[in-house]
Amino acid sequence: MAVYTDVSESELGAFLKEYSIGELLSYKGIAEGSENSNFLLHTTSSSYILTLYEKRVDKDDLPFFLGLMEHLARKGISCPLPVHRCDGSVTGVLAGRTAAVITFLEGMWMRRPTVAHCREVGKALASLHLAGMDFPMSRPNALDMTGWCKLWEGSHDHADEVEPGLTAEVDADFAELERSWPKDLPAGIIHADLFPDNVFFLGEKLSGLIDFYFACNDLYAYDLATCLNAWCFEKDNSFNLTKGAALLAAYQSVRPLSEAEKEAMPILARGSALRFMLTRLYDWLTIPDGALVQKRDPMEFIRKVRFHRQIKSPSEYGLK
Amino acid sequence: MAVYTDVSESELGAFLKEYSIGELLSYKGIAEGSENSNFLLHTTSSSYILTLYEKRVDKDDLPFFLGLMEHLARKGISCPLPVHRCDGSVTGVLAGRTAAVITFLEGMWMRRPTVAHCREVGKALASLHLAGMDFPMSRPNALDMTGWCKLWEGSHDHADEVEPGLTAEVDADFAELERSWPKDLPAGIIHADLFPDNVFFLGEKLSGLIDFYFACNDLYAYDLATCLNAWCFEKDNSFNLTKGAALLAAYQSVRPLSEAEKEAMPILARGSALRFMLTRLYDWLTIPDGALVQKRDPMEFIRKVRFHRQIKSPSEYGLK
Repeated sequence: MAVYTDVSESELGAFLKEYSIGELLSYKGIAEGSENSNFLLHTTSSSYILTLYEKRVDKDDLPFFLGLMEHLARKGISCPLPVHRCDGSVTGVLAGRTAAVITFLEGMWMRRPTVAHCREVGKALASLHLAGMDFPMSRPNALDMTGWCKLWEGSHDHADEVEPGLTAEVDADFAELERSWPKDLPAGIIHADLFPDNVFFLGEKLSGLIDFYFACNDLYAYDLATCLNAWCFEKDNSFNLTKGAALLAAYQSVRPLSEAEKEAMPILARGSALRFMLTRLYDWLTIPDGALVQKRDPMEFIRKVRFHRQIKSPSEYGLK
Repeated sequence: MAVYTDVSESELGAFLKEYSIGELLSYKGIAEGSENSNFLLHTTSSSYILTLYEKRVDKDDLPFFLGLMEHLARKGISCPLPVHRCDGSVTGVLAGRTAAVITFLEGMWMRRPTVAHCREVGKALASLHLAGMDFPMSRPNALDMTGWCKLWEGSHDHADEVEPGLTAEVDADFAELERSWPKDLPAGIIHADLFPDNVFFLGEKLSGLIDFYFACNDLYAYDLATCLNAWCFEKDNSFNLTKGAALLAAYQSVRPLSEAEKEAMPILARGSALRFMLTRLYDWLTIPDGALVQKRDPMEFIRKVRFHRQIKSPSEYGLK
């Protein structure tokens, strides 16, 4: 929620000489996107997003992320399209950072999503999964179980300071997840972070998906489980079954789930909740107070882990 | 440099029903403006700035600030124009804050202003002074010498922690300023905070003045002295005489200074530098680490105070 790197008009002007997007009229740092510095540009031709990739993004992954956005956009998914420079490339260097210009999508993200929004997201996620099937590049999920273990190693000794008993609780989750994690489910390109702030709407109609900087190859049903965690819980951490059923049915109207995927939903949702709890816990314990990075309460997601732990059947999510 | 208050799409939608500015397409929190929460809106008609006034702005002052912007815009000064609501008012309540919609000005603020930019600012400041002469409202300067004394009372006992000797140095400045501060110079509406981030350019042409939330009635030459401090020092705190001469000559090409105003320039510039040093020092000492408000080094402005202290004649600023 910050601009980490400021850009002067003269260096931005020089950078934009490599693009054919008209004359620059204004640029404003925007308070969204927790990993990178983002600016909203107005030019004589249109609006664009300028992203400066900060250290949390591996530069070697940019051809995958930007190539995927281009692939998906050409397949009809409404997502930002990287703008090519005059030499054909999609990144340059600005203020010492690798930087890209992408098209601006109109729309608002929903602070309080409704059932109708959940339905739209379910359809869009399944469409994204189908559209990514012939994308030629791949990227392993850096936040798979091996990644979770690393985060846990870095947090383990201080977890009880956040809540007494948390260490033993999460250790037990890891044991169960390592035993039960599904391996042979359909996999391919997933978004991996499709939270409400990454989905734009105009009214009840979905107008775009953004922020592909966690996209990777992993289980499709895991991506769907993440959406259950991101969209179907209320502020009081209660699970909204109507939203869950709507999201899952809408997904299946585009890409039906196999029986094995359905059966795996409780363990996938539990793993997904643990993954977001772990990144938040790690940041909570390691980022100094006063840093620009916004730290978020890890306890929200441990409550979701606990919810999924007591699920007996996927039908409890409204899954049919 | 932050958004202090987030706004949901539904409450913003309801708020905008009172305006005739088209359908909302997007809104982004912008990382500019240190006092309020600002959003850049796109609607089907145009772009706008939505400002939520946070606690540092006195709501009772808003009719003055917004009325002044409207007055100046109608007089041909390029500044944001408050958008009237269907009932004629220019403010409403959003997310528990008083809020206003103003027109969006294209342009970029100069991180590294040139002599040409200083010339444009000088002309624009004088034009603003002339255009404000028949504005019917008035507002005392909350940051006049009485205001400086209050800030100093709140910082005095800890100033030596910032730099040893600072307390005695500033006490001596106060004694001198109280003895020598001019009282009978031409006065009227001043901007009072015309720093580079409040002036937009398209190329070398000034495209707009923003942020009138310190505007008040005070000495015109004091406003000009603030511009000397804001525009004519280099990053190493050296005074750029070419920039000073350009700014002052450009101002005088629109509104010539009286001999008394010229003679007062060193003491006015010293007082203005002290004023910005004091607000920064007070924030530095009182705002907790980790707060969203950006704290800025007070020492930059004590160096400017020291520079002005040794000025023997206004000609040393390039003043003719």
